[in-house]
Order: sequence, then C-alpha cells, then structure tokens
Amino acid sequence: MPQVAIFMGSASDEETMRPCTQLLDQLKISYIFTVSSAHRTPERTEHLVDTLEADGCQVFICAAGMAAHLAGAVAARTLKPVIGVPVTASNLSGLDAMLATVQMPPGYPVATVALDKAGAKNAAWLAAQMIALTDTSIAANLKAAREEGKAAVIKSAEELEARYAK
Amino acid sequence: MPQVAIFMGSASDEETMRPCTQLLDQLKISYIFTVSSAHRTPERTEHLVDTLEADGCQVFICAAGMAAHLAGAVAARTLKPVIGVPVTASNLSGLDAMLATVQMPPGYPVATVALDKAGAKNAAWLAAQMIALTDTSIAANLKAAREEGKAAVIKSAEELEARYAK
Amino acid sequence: MPQVAIFMGSASDEETMRPCTQLLDQLKISYIFTVSSAHRTPERTEHLVDTLEADGCQVFICAAGMAAHLAGAVAARTLKPVIGVPVTASNLSGLDAMLATVQMPPGYPVATVALDKAGAKNAAWLAAQMIALTDTSIAANLKAAREEGKAAVIKSAEELEARYAK
Amino acid sequence: MPQVAIFMGSASDEETMRPCTQLLDQLKISYIFTVSSAHRTPERTEHLVDTLEADGCQVFICAAGMAAHLAGAVAARTLKPVIGVPVTASNLSGLDAMLATVQMPPGYPVATVALDKAGAKNAAWLAAQMIALTDTSIAANLKAAREEGKAAVIKSAEELEARYAK
Amino acid sequence: MPQVAIFMGSASDEETMRPCTQLLDQLKISYIFTVSSAHRTPERTEHLVDTLEADGCQVFICAAGMAAHLAGAVAARTLKPVIGVPVTASNLSGLDAMLATVQMPPGYPVATVALDKAGAKNAAWLAAQMIALTDTSIAANLKAAREEGKAAVIKSAEELEARYAK
Amino acid sequence: MPQVAIFMGSASDEETMRPCTQLLDQLKISYIFTVSSAHRTPERTEHLVDTLEADGCQVFICAAGMAAHLAGAVAARTLKPVIGVPVTASNLSGLDAMLATVQMPPGYPVATVALDKAGAKNAAWLAAQMIALTDTSIAANLKAAREEGKAAVIKSAEELEARYAK
Amino acid sequence: MPQVAIFMGSASDEETMRPCTQLLDQLKISYIFTVSSAHRTPERTEHLVDTLEADGCQVFICAAGMAAHLAGAVAARTLKPVIGVPVTASNLSGLDAMLATVQMPPGYPVATVALDKAGAKNAAWLAAQMIALTDTSIAANLKAAREEGKAAVIKSAEELEARYAK
Amino acid sequence: MPQVAIFMGSASDEETMRPCTQLLDQLKISYIFTVSSAHRTPERTEHLVDTLEADGCQVFICAAGMAAHLAGAVAARTLKPVIGVPVTASNLSGLDAMLATVQMPPGYPVATVALDKAGAKNAAWLAAQMIALTDTSIAANLKAAREEGKAAVIKSAEELEARYAK
Repeated sequence: MPQVAIFMGSASDEETMRPCTQLLDQLKISYIFTVSSAHRTPERTEHLVDTLEADGCQVFICAAGMAAHLAGAVAARTLKPVIGVPVTASNLSGLDAMLATVQMPPGYPVATVALDKAGAKNAAWLAAQMIALTDTSIAANLKAAREEGKAAVIKSAEELEARYAK
Repeated sequence: MPQVAIFMGSASDEETMRPCTQLLDQLKISYIFTVSSAHRTPERTEHLVDTLEADGCQVFICAAGMAAHLAGAVAARTLKPVIGVPVTASNLSGLDAMLATVQMPPGYPVATVALDKAGAKNAAWLAAQMIALTDTSIAANLKAAREEGKAAVIKSAEELEARYAK
Repeated sequence: MPQVAIFMGSASDEETMRPCTQLLDQLKISYIFTVSSAHRTPERTEHLVDTLEADGCQVFICAAGMAAHLAGAVAARTLKPVIGVPVTASNLSGLDAMLATVQMPPGYPVATVALDKAGAKNAAWLAAQMIALTDTSIAANLKAAREEGKAAVIKSAEELEARYAK
Repeated sequence: MPQVAIFMGSASDEETMRPCTQLLDQLKISYIFTVSSAHRTPERTEHLVDTLEADGCQVFICAAGMAAHLAGAVAARTLKPVIGVPVTASNLSGLDAMLATVQMPPGYPVATVALDKAGAKNAAWLAAQMIALTDTSIAANLKAAREEGKAAVIKSAEELEARYAK
Repeated sequence: MPQVAIFMGSASDEETMRPCTQLLDQLKISYIFTVSSAHRTPERTEHLVDTLEADGCQVFICAAGMAAHLAGAVAARTLKPVIGVPVTASNLSGLDAMLATVQMPPGYPVATVALDKAGAKNAAWLAAQMIALTDTSIAANLKAAREEGKAAVIKSAEELEARYAK
Repeated sequence: MPQVAIFMGSASDEETMRPCTQLLDQLKISYIFTVSSAHRTPERTEHLVDTLEADGCQVFICAAGMAAHLAGAVAARTLKPVIGVPVTASNLSGLDAMLATVQMPPGYPVATVALDKAGAKNAAWLAAQMIALTDTSIAANLKAAREEGKAAVIKSAEELEARYAK
Repeated sequence: MPQVAIFMGSASDEETMRPCTQLLDQLKISYIFTVSSAHRTPERTEHLVDTLEADGCQVFICAAGMAAHLAGAVAARTLKPVIGVPVTASNLSGLDAMLATVQMPPGYPVATVALDKAGAKNAAWLAAQMIALTDTSIAANLKAAREEGKAAVIKSAEELEARYAK
Repeated sequence: MPQVAIFMGSASDEETMRPCTQLLDQLKISYIFTVSSAHRTPERTEHLVDTLEADGCQVFICAAGMAAHLAGAVAARTLKPVIGVPVTASNLSGLDAMLATVQMPPGYPVATVALDKAGAKNAAWLAAQMIALTDTSIAANLKAAREEGKAAVIKSAEELEARYAK
C-alpha cells in the first residue's frame, strides 16, 4: 500500500521524474509510479485516485506539461494534498505548464513546485514533509538528507576556495 | 434541444460571455447557458456533456479563467468540437487562462479564441461556422452578420474622413 | 475535391505539419497541402480560398510563424471554419505566432490550437471533429483513434508500473 | 498552540490574506497571524519559526510580493511544509512574486499556490489537507466545505439557466 | 493628394492616434486619416492602398490592436514604407499587437514604433523623416520641432532644479 | 557640491522619485535632482555628467521608462557607479524599462534596482551604501534608518497579532 | 558616399547581419558596414553619424542585443530615419533587445523590424523602400526582388503539392 | 583580507562567474570566491557575511539562479553594497532569477546586473567602481580597462570595414 502516488501525463516524462523516485527510495517512502492522463484516460485517473485513496495513499504527485491539467483533475477528486510538477514540453519555456498548474481556483489547491527535475525532487521532498508531520522515522530521514545536502555545499565551497586561494 | 452548450467555470463571467449569447440569439442558434466547473463539479460537467451530446448538441463553448481546465475537461469527454474562451481572472493578464486553454495535448484539441469579450463573440461565431457547414440558413445569417460588420466599418470610416477633411 | 485545405506560410514548416497530414490520412479525410503566404502571395491565397471553397472544401488549416497573419487572412476571405497552428520560427518561443494567431477581432475567429507539432496534430483532429458533425464514418474513425490513444497510455502505464514494482 | 503560522512580509497584505484566516476559522484550525520579513527582520523570522515549530506548529504559510523570499527563508529553517502565496505588489502582474516563490532549489520546496486572494484561500485549504491526513475532524470539516462550494456552483447554475430559459 | 495615409483597424483608436495627426498638422504634411480593417474590409484596404499609391502617397501608417495584421496586410500590397503602431486593445499589455506588428517575414518589413500614443506620435515623426529625405521644407520643420522638444526638457529641468535647490 | 546626481528622463517621473529624494534628505546626503534625456538632450546629459564628476559627484541615479537608455548613456560617460531605476511608462508593466536598464554589455554596468517607487527608495539606499564605504557618518545614518524600518515591522506585527488574538 | 550606414554594437553580429548586406548588394544600394557601440565608443558613434550624414547618407541601420541602445543613440543624433534590428544576445529570447529598441520616446522613433536574421533582411528592405521613394531605379530593383520572392513561394508550393498529390 | 566577496549559490556556476574573477584579477582587486546558499547553508552565509565585513570586505557579489534569494539574504545581513548576478538555471530564460534578484523591497537594495556571463563581468566592474570611489589606483586600472575595451571595438571596426570595402 503506497504512501505516495506519482502520476505522469505521459511516459516520456520518466527521466524528468527520476529525482522524485530516487529521493522517495532514499527516504524509505513507498510509492506507486504510473502514467495517467487527465484527458486521454480520465476514467482511469479517477479510478486510480479513488482506489489509492481507499488503500491509504496520503499524497498525490502529478507531473504534466503544456496545458497541464493532471494535478487539477486529481485535486478535483480527492481531499488529500496534491503536488504539481510543471514539465517543459513545448517551446514556451514551461510557462504554460507552470501557470496551468499553479493558478487553481479557491478550494482546489495544487501545491506547485519548481519546473522539471528540480521540481521532481522537491515534490518528493514536500510529500515527505507532509508524511513526516506524524511519522518520526521519515522525519529523521528527511533531517539526515538535509544535513547531507548542507555538507555537500560546504565541501564544494572548500574545494573552490582552495583552488582560488593565492 | 440546444445546438450549442455554453459552460462557464464561474457565474461571475456572465457579463464577459454576453457577446456570445447575443450573437447566437442574432444568428438564431439555440443554446443552453450554464455554470459548471472542471474542479468543483466534475461529475455535473461530465453528466451535462453526456446528456447534451445525446440530445444532439453540436458544439461546446467553455469559458474559464486562471488555470482554465474546463474546456480541456469537456474535450476529454466528447468528440464534438470544443471552443475555449480564456478569461482574465487574475493579475496575470489572462496569459494563465490563454496557455491553459490552448496548449492541449495531441488528440484533445480546444479551438481557442481571443481573451475575454472578443473571444466570447468569436466563440459564437466559430460555433456558427461549424453548424453552417451543413445548415444553409445559419450560413445565410452568418453572411448577413458579416456584411453588417463590414458596413459598420465603412460608415465609421466615412464619418472619420469627413471630420478630418480640410 | 478535398475536404480540408492545409496552407503553410513557408515550405520549411513541412516537417512540423507532418502529424497533421498523417492523422488526416489515418482518418480517411481528403486534403490539399500547399504553401501560400499572407504577405508574399496574397492574391494566390485569396484565389485558393475562393476556388477551394467553391469546390466544397469544408475547413481551412493555416500554419505560420512569427507575425502569423495567414490564418487571419484566410478567415477574412471565407465563412468556413479556419484553424490556426502557431509555429515557432523565431527566438521568441512561438509566443509571437501564438498571439498573432489567437487574438483575432470579433467576427473573424481563428480556432487556435497548440504550438508546433502538437498543434499540427490537433488541427487535423479538430477539422475531423467538425466534419464528423455530419459524417458518421469520420466520427467512427475519430472514435477509434481516440480509443487507440487511450490504449497506448494504458500500455505505457503497465510497462512503467512493472519496471518500478518491488 | 497554533497548528498553522501565517507570516506576511508586510502588514499591507492583510486584506489579501483575509480569505486564508476566514477559511481556517471556518475549518476550526488554530493559527497565529503575524508580520515578519525575510529581509527586514530575519532574526525575528528565524526565532518565530524555531519557537512555533517547538510549540507544535505543523504548517507555515508565507505571503509576500516582489522578490518574494519569505517562504524560502522559512523553508530554509524548518522541515515542516511551507506554503507560499505570491502577492501582486509591483506593476509586474505578480509574475515576480510567483517565480521568486515557486522556483526553489532541490531540498527546499515551497508549496506554491495561486496569486493573491485565490492563493490565500488555497493556502488555508492546503494546510488543512495536510493536517487532515491524521485529523479526522478537520477532514470532515474540509469535506463539508467542499460540498458547500459544490452546492453554490449548482445553485448559481440553476439561477443562470432559469434566466436564459426561453 | 495626401503624402501620408493613416489607417486604423477600428474607429475606437482615434484618440490614441491624435498625437499622430497633430504632429503631421504641425509639420505641414498632408494626410488622409481613415478606418480600414485587414479582416473586415480587406478589399477596401487593398483598393485604398492602390488608389493612394497611384495618387502619390509616400508612406502608410497603420494602427491596430490584438492580432494586429493591418500593417502587414498593407505591406503585402505596396512597396512604399509601412509604419506600424501597436495598440493595447486586450488585457495582454499590447504585447499581442507589438509582436503581430514587428515580427514580419523577410521582404515585408513593417517599421514598428512604440505602443499606443508614444508610437502614434513617432509614426508621424518617422513618416516625416522619410519625406524629409528629399523635402527640405519638411526637414526644416522637423528640425524646429526637435529644438522645441529639447527646449521643453531644459525648461522643465530648470524648474525642477529651482524647486529642489537649498 | 552634490554627492549624488539624480537624473530623470522626464519631469513627469518626479512623484515616482520622491522616495529617493526623501531618503537622501533623511540620510543627510547632498544631491542635485534634475531632468535630462538620453535622446532629447544628449549633449546636456554628457555635459552634466562631466561637470558633476569634476565637482566630486560620487554616484549617478538615473530613472527612465520605456526603452530606458538614460542610465546606460550616463554609464558610457563616467566610471562612477550608475544606479538605474526602471519606471513603468507604457502598458508593458515596466518590463521594457527593466530590461533596457539591466541588460547592459560588459564594461558598462548599471546597478539596477526595483521598478518605480520601491526602486526609487532603493536607489537612494544603494547610493548611501556606496558613500558609507568611507563615510562613517552616513554609515551611522544608514544603520539608524535600518533599525527604524525593523522597528516598524515589529510594531505592525504586534498590532496585527493583537487584533487576531483569541 | 554610402546611401546607407549599418552599425553593429558588436563584431560578433556580423553573421546575423549578412542578409542585410546581401540584399543591399543585390539592390545596388551603396553602404558602409561597421562596428560602433553606444556605450563603448559613444564619441565614435556620434562622429560617424555626423560625418556620414554630411556625406549624404540617407538611412541608418543599427543592430544590437541585450539593452540595445545603439539605434536610440543614433536617433538622438540625426534626423535621418533610423532602423533598429534587435539581436538575440542573452537567454531572454531577444525580448530585451526588442523592447529596448522599439519603445522609444516621442520625437525619437526607431523603425524596428523583426529579431535577428529576418530583421536584418527587412532592415535592408525598409531602407531600400525609403530610398526608392525618389529613386526609380531602386524602386525597380525592389519590385523585381519582390517578384522573385513571390515566384519562389509558388515554386515551393508546386513541388509540395506534387509530392502530396494522390 | 579580501576587498570583495563572491558567493555562488551552487558550485555549478563557477564557469559562469569566471569573467568576474578574471576582471578582478586584472584590476588587482583582492577577493574571496566561495559557495554558500541562502537555503542550504543559511548560517554559513550569515557567518561569512559577518566575518568578511568585520575583516574589511567592501562589496558582496552574489550569483544565483531560479528563485535567486542569495543576494537578498546577504543584503538583509549587511549594510555594505550587494551586487546580484542572475543566472539562467531553469527553462524560464533566467527571468525567474532576474526578477527574484532585482525586485527587492525598500531598504534592501540589490544592485542587479545583466544575466549570466555579461552580468558576471559587470558585477566585478561595478564592485571596482565602488572601490575606486576612494582608491585612485583601482580607478586608474578601471580607466585603462575601459580604454582597452574601446580600442578593441575600434580594431574590430577597422577589420570589418576593410573586409567590406569595395
């Protein structure tokens, strides 16, 4: 029974979403990762949302490009938090997906994160933060991951400073 | 049995859509004008589309603002042509609604027209053009309306030229 | 006698428009595919529109980039529905073509679809939807194509889920 | 001990944030509503985050305009979920606040909602959804609120249809 | 026989274009000021261009909003210089008219000036500069107008400096 | 002998620039405030820059709208720091002035601050920061002003918290 | 004695401007092609403008990227027509150069053409149109070039139609 | 004791910032070049600012992409001038970083320069201009560098003119 459901509007976004699944793996959060489209398979999307929610799924992550309606369609069907990852899928720099994801009407929020891979990772992070509200083990994993990130910055800073020291 | 269905995502867009109903009235095209939301009443939207299509409705016109998903949600449910009117409903100049309406994925076109009132009128015009493909009476009404518009330009030109003549 | 006319402003957009001709072929819709420019060959464009309309052409599809006036020029000449495909042809991300296509004045709608290849396919789809209003054979072909698309999503979902199953 | 903390970068955004406090009141979620700035009072912001988190605050909502850094500054300090409301505070249509809020780097997500009042309401909604993950009373309140919204759409639809019925 | 022709796509832009006619009056350049639309009256537009060019008209000024095709339509019909004034006529800040005017394909330039009233005045100025290439009287008028503008800046500077002097 | 020179491209921006002069007054920094245009009075602009620099002026602040070239023109003439305030003077939301001010080529930086009044105040602040590098009295004034701002935030926070306390 | 002067802000734009020099060569219009910068060599720019104008130069073409001030700087110095070619020289899609070129204040128009190579060619075309106002030989060359362009479109149309004929 | 501190939000921007360190080297200005993040290492950033300022650092240069908060975070901590270099780090053309850097609230200016490498060089240039206010040796170096740049333009102009001379 997955804690998180990840939906992509198209199988072609798998590579973009890899930082999402990798971080969930690292944080020991269970998930289902699948393709479902707001437009091409609306019944499947609705059915999945209902089934997953009944099975105890806590958070939905939806990645889509262009007129990205997927996260909104899921948000219309559930009261669980829905996270949206806008994906660059046209020449419009991802601005189409960004605005179609974030500008949701009152009562149907989509928790929108950054474009593309940065957003994919942050969707996993945000889902983990929600789960960590009441799961101390995930909270500890998150804290460790944050410390790792901090250490990596400091290490890269030391290397850079050493190279530029005179 | 209406030939055209007009859906607004919110009752507050009624004034914006008036040029649409006025032109349909003038062209003698029957229509239903209602409110239905992709997010707040998805089942109602689906049910309306199914019922109206079964009753012989030919064209759907959908007006929505912000992350405007309404036209896309209708397009996902029917194979009748769907016309989208992006409405300015945030500080983002209507660009959010425009991109969320027009950038539909392959297989689910939304025939997007201009923003706001200009688009409202053009949605009616475009619906009439589709119906006129096989309805000669509507075709004649359209032709008359176009001649009227042309005459109005010429009249305004004559008045202007007269005022600036030296 | 083609049911659909496809005009490109420049021969260089042929590759972009291939999804359009491919879908029309698949749906068994006859078409003419040619180059004509709003600016470079305005008389040819007007003459083609008049001739094709007289020959029974039902829908015009116009693809153009930059200050994309082609669809508007055709819409000024006919009362048949005109579909516009904005093409990215400058460094401005296609936004120039998008706005020059969609923001038509009242009485002269251009049914605008997505940018580039996604729009090319959707232009064919939208034209087919219009023709299918009174042609049950095309309606059946459209329905079959939609089912195919749906099946493809489900297949890709199953493959993805299998790869990520643990 | 508040469940939610609402920070505004400037007291002038109080009116914009009213839909947020109103919805939290309606849903029976406790909150603190205050002003703190990422730039003008960074120590106060940090101190508030630490204190509130220690006191059991579950979610942070941050509203800011222009180069809206407040949500990011809070996200840098806590592992609780942070929701960002971009506010239009310059002539740039809120696009500055939107991008400065949503485009966070990996590991520091801000759950971004729509611009201005729509986003203010959705921030409360999203916070409630997170709390409702483990609080069945809030979950019931949310469900009731959603039903109310749905009923309002249907009521407005009936009134509109009645006025346009012929 | 006018030296300059000013076309507006719509009579509603008369106020926007007043700085254009005022400057032409001041510079003693003859002009015709009329309404003609690329879409609503294409034949009239073509006929006017042909007639005016035959009568010795040297420069065309075209003002239009939204998907502003008017200047391009005139440029397709004449080899005289065509100046385009983009007019804000939708919620898109005039960006639609700007891009639809300036992004013309090779061989059909439109000399685009600033949006709205600033552009209206500059269109007259630019037309005068072209005529002044071989008309020394207009060249002298232009020079005088420029000196006037310069003097006005200096006068306003002196007043401001005086008020802030301590 | 002013420490700072403030140039506006047009006298109509005086109100926009008031926060700049007010802050300089408060910080006890001497200034000259005048109108000079990159285009209308280029010689005056050059002459002023040369004279003021010779008289010991340390920093130039330039406010302009539309294709805002004033700051760049000053930067081309002096090696003193030049601060640019983009002003909203067209329907393009100030984006024209912003980009025309900030995107300077290598070797000719313009220290660009926020649009309009916020930028006007920050221009004064930034100029003061530069002068304070070697003027301890100004540094003390700046520090006091910052503390005042901080106190104002805290006061507004206390008032707000009191009103919302339950 | 050149009829046209072409200034680039940077030698790196030579390739972008080749369509400009090629068309002037083809039309038998004499020109000088050089590098001069509004910021790096303002005196050289001013001196060149004065000298060239004294020598009978009729039109100035200025190509620049980023905060493209070159055309404006030339327009401030001469009453001859100035044509601006915005060049994409940053990641901002050329929008920075476009707005910095076209949004000139009243009295200092820059005749702006399309971005990059399309604009380079159109700058030459527009300059030729101005010269052709009183030079019948250039007018004839322009007419021939336009006919060539038209023929090329028709040829490409015939080839395309042949390939798609069934 | 460095005169200038250069902070990058991420080690991956080292190449982008090379023109900054190269120019500081050429101008004989001492600097520290390191990585510190507003979000990942806020305490390190604060500590570095305090230490460097205490050690006599005069100017801070901060380069960051996406929701670029680094310069603002530094500006919140010091009264020394802070220069911001927006870096393109997403598909949004650097517009996200640009707006998140420049649109600072009153009292916390960030002296924003151009995007990416052009901005990196200009950040060094601007820092040098500030230091040169009271350091005549740096002022002389700056003057020499500017003359070099001017000479390079003139040399490239001569080469170009020679190649195009007929």
